[in-house]
Amino acid sequence: MPGDGIGPEITEQAVRILEAVTEGTGLSLNFIPGLIGGAAYDAAGHPFPDATRDAALKADAVLLGAVGGPQYDNLDRPLRPERGLLGIRSAMGLFANLRPAILYPQLADSSSLKSEVVAGLDILIVRELTGGAYFGQPRGIRVVDGQREGFNTMHYNEMEIERIGRVAFEAAMQRGRKVCSVDKANVLETSELWREVMIRVSKDYPEVELSHMYVDNAAMQLVRWPKQFDVIVTENLFGDILSDQASMLTGSIGMLPSASLNDKGQGLYEPSHGSAPDIAGQGIANPLATILSAAMLLRYSFGRADLAQRIESAVNDVLEQGLRTRDICTKNDQEVSTQAMGDAMVAIL
Amino acid sequence: MPGDGIGPEITEQAVRILEAVTEGTGLSLNFIPGLIGGAAYDAAGHPFPDATRDAALKADAVLLGAVGGPQYDNLDRPLRPERGLLGIRSAMGLFANLRPAILYPQLADSSSLKSEVVAGLDILIVRELTGGAYFGQPRGIRVVDGQREGFNTMHYNEMEIERIGRVAFEAAMQRGRKVCSVDKANVLETSELWREVMIRVSKDYPEVELSHMYVDNAAMQLVRWPKQFDVIVTENLFGDILSDQASMLTGSIGMLPSASLNDKGQGLYEPSHGSAPDIAGQGIANPLATILSAAMLLRYSFGRADLAQRIESAVNDVLEQGLRTRDICTKNDQEVSTQAMGDAMVAIL
Ligand SMILES: CC(C)[C@H](C(=O)O)[C@@H](O)C(=O)O
Ligand SMILES: CC(C)[C@H](C(=O)O)[C@@H](O)C(=O)O
Repeated sequence: MPGDGIGPEITEQAVRILEAVTEGTGLSLNFIPGLIGGAAYDAAGHPFPDATRDAALKADAVLLGAVGGPQYDNLDRPLRPERGLLGIRSAMGLFANLRPAILYPQLADSSSLKSEVVAGLDILIVRELTGGAYFGQPRGIRVVDGQREGFNTMHYNEMEIERIGRVAFEAAMQRGRKVCSVDKANVLETSELWREVMIRVSKDYPEVELSHMYVDNAAMQLVRWPKQFDVIVTENLFGDILSDQASMLTGSIGMLPSASLNDKGQGLYEPSHGSAPDIAGQGIANPLATILSAAMLLRYSFGRADLAQRIESAVNDVLEQGLRTRDICTKNDQEVSTQAMGDAMVAIL
Repeated sequence: MPGDGIGPEITEQAVRILEAVTEGTGLSLNFIPGLIGGAAYDAAGHPFPDATRDAALKADAVLLGAVGGPQYDNLDRPLRPERGLLGIRSAMGLFANLRPAILYPQLADSSSLKSEVVAGLDILIVRELTGGAYFGQPRGIRVVDGQREGFNTMHYNEMEIERIGRVAFEAAMQRGRKVCSVDKANVLETSELWREVMIRVSKDYPEVELSHMYVDNAAMQLVRWPKQFDVIVTENLFGDILSDQASMLTGSIGMLPSASLNDKGQGLYEPSHGSAPDIAGQGIANPLATILSAAMLLRYSFGRADLAQRIESAVNDVLEQGLRTRDICTKNDQEVSTQAMGDAMVAIL
């Protein structure tokens, strides 16, 4: 699902990479195109058409570019591109959003933080994606005492907290064995239950160290000393904020992939960045976040960590070769196009 | 109200400064001690005793140290120190929280961000403080379909949004004439109304430029290029997160004051940092954030910008003299105690 803005350019390269890396491996992928976001609205009058939903539910995995653009800003809320994204998350039950924030050593200078603060940064944010205020009912705008009032409801039940907790602890077992659960338990009852369930889940993972942090403090600690974190697990809205903050610490959000998983092994894979309408169609977008999302797709939806690693190491190689799209290019590097970056990756693979 | 941890040490110095700066000016302050937080629980069994409430409601202004400490972590929720803070905000109707994030040139090295990114940083965060999910009803933990579920309600009516909007626009008129309103209008109805009302309020301030930003993007932009902001206005929970993030950008949260105002000219003034129980009683805490909060007190509750400026310029002088408490001390500076910092300020004033 290419979506909008730079979406088509970057997914095109990621598909090429998937074809190249699976060639002769016994895994043969069948690509079905799907419309989503503004592109779907233009073609079918809705950002998440039924045909897209049906195709998504039948697929093993969805590779998505990005959605959104200024031409859709004045549409009614239910027709806006981001509704496509919220729609597919909800339809597929994609409750677990995994967003790594990794600083590539070759790109250390891109960060706005001092290099000693971010060198070697490798955090995984596990964001709950189908609960909280995003989908909570009741919600709306109503009149109370003659005045309009906007209201939203945030809620989580034990099952929802437990299953995202397990995803975080399982991930930590494969990494640094630390989970920091971020909440606002000093103010919100939702967070009180969140914290209680996280403690319960942690009993099943005695090798993993669990800590708790209030969300305001987490936003501070991510600036002060982000390397203190291994896995951060948090609810939908806090995760939206903190995962964007964490990815920007690296200064190269054009490099960061994401995976959103359900409990059936299906997943949606997309870059952490947006649709960048300002540079769409110019052939200068960075395809690496989408290509690394394709690596996550092979790892999580097809159980092929070996192929995922081949892609990841090829990304390392192109960076070593000094190839850079404009977003990550500094004066000593060689600026290449979206297509040329894909070519270089294919050549390596 | 000294409160807990380092609270007593830092408020002691701020009171000395208030006495020194008002001497012979015709303004004579009458200090009434008040219990709040853990200290109030210890002495009176409640973090916000009735006597404290009565004294606060009668005062022109409240100077507060900080609340909280590990010895109170296992108390029931309504008895915890932070309930004192939430209690006084609500009782006094302190809806407007002003938190500057300023980088003192003498302390530029303390930041974890590159110096060109933060040099000259001067942002004002205007956080709505009595609405949103903090006080929203209904809330709690209930059983639904045999499972416990935590829930909270976020709401804002037009009046609440309008009055905080006016505070932000008025502040911007005295500064850089830019207001960025932060919300999550692509997901939350509460934010949809927030945005609509901000646009309406902005019509009364044609000299001020209003922009809107989603909260996830704001968390990114604060890391990427914080100097793009002048005044940020946002709701309670987003403001909690973003104001802490912004203050940490400076690397010297021990320098940052805050003011919380109601519509009667009363205010509560406290440092942006916490009670730092780990260093309490050692005489090494930085009193400058509390002293600068006292300057805000003179400016906002007593209309004495002249006296506020005298304090602010004295803070600049002690920094120029190279005096530093431990939190802001690097190897070429002279480390001084909390008391010695107060002495130096009094000497200048
Ligand atoms: C577009 C928006 C609805 C979405 C979200 O808030 O989840 C985006 O910010 C993200 O993080 O994927
Ligand atoms: C202690 C806590 C309740 C409080 C808040 O969340 O408002 C604090 O974080 C603050 O920002 O003053």
